[in-house]
Amino acid sequence: MEKLVSEIGELLVSKGWTMSTAESCTGGLVAATLTDVSGSSRWFSGAIVAYSNEIKMAMLDVSEKTLIDHGAVSEETVLEMADGVSKKLGTQVGISLSGVAGPTGGSAEKPVGTVWMGWHIGDKTFARKCLFSGDRAAVKKQSLEYVLETLRDQLL
Amino acid sequence: MEKLVSEIGELLVSKGWTMSTAESCTGGLVAATLTDVSGSSRWFSGAIVAYSNEIKMAMLDVSEKTLIDHGAVSEETVLEMADGVSKKLGTQVGISLSGVAGPTGGSAEKPVGTVWMGWHIGDKTFARKCLFSGDRAAVKKQSLEYVLETLRDQLL
Repeated sequence: MEKLVSEIGELLVSKGWTMSTAESCTGGLVAATLTDVSGSSRWFSGAIVAYSNEIKMAMLDVSEKTLIDHGAVSEETVLEMADGVSKKLGTQVGISLSGVAGPTGGSAEKPVGTVWMGWHIGDKTFARKCLFSGDRAAVKKQSLEYVLETLRDQLL
Repeated sequence: MEKLVSEIGELLVSKGWTMSTAESCTGGLVAATLTDVSGSSRWFSGAIVAYSNEIKMAMLDVSEKTLIDHGAVSEETVLEMADGVSKKLGTQVGISLSGVAGPTGGSAEKPVGTVWMGWHIGDKTFARKCLFSGDRAAVKKQSLEYVLETLRDQLL
């Protein structure tokens, strides 16, 4: 992971950009991994871990209507989370994650391993859904890798 | 760590309390560790990772005067961070960490490994300073263990 994080850092610095994360199911794992690399303070500003819906609304400006209509694990929510954290923390890049890490909380529509991720990069925001296998730790780890690999690819 | 986190969770649930974290040098590691345990959403609300001083001020209500007079790695700053995150996220318990994880950033007064930690628990807030040895990962890991062991002992 350290090589990937260093690549992301160099790409951000070359653009004069900073980044932030808005995390639900990963609980801060993405931010912790980014800051494992010395010098990350040059391009990493901070993170909001919003485990409850109340905090998604209060700290990330996710609308109550979005949460009611689509749920916390949805394309609409992660788009608002990515935009929200970028705006709140004043960064050009913001990434977001909301999913069902398990072992509980799964449903037929959103089984354990379902993770929505969002990327706000410059002036565009997009989202993707993945269905990861394995236990809680495995789902979190795969989410971490996917969200950062996609960020690196998009910054290139 | 899982046993310690489960103990903290049970103590919080027994009091009807929730908790949050405000992290600088640990970069979200404490929140990520707390949420590794299934069911943590019952007692963990969220976290603010404030890597920059701007975000310590904007998101955690740390005063500019405190940061100028005492620095980000200080008793005064972690006290304000612990109070700030508890208030912002509406939790009865808030813990905070700000330190020099290294390998750079150390000084004669605040060498690498210096970590200030704060605990807001119910109606009291207190802080302690530790000087940990080892590399960046070791400093973060010892900070994590110390802040959570102290929280468990104080909740008992």
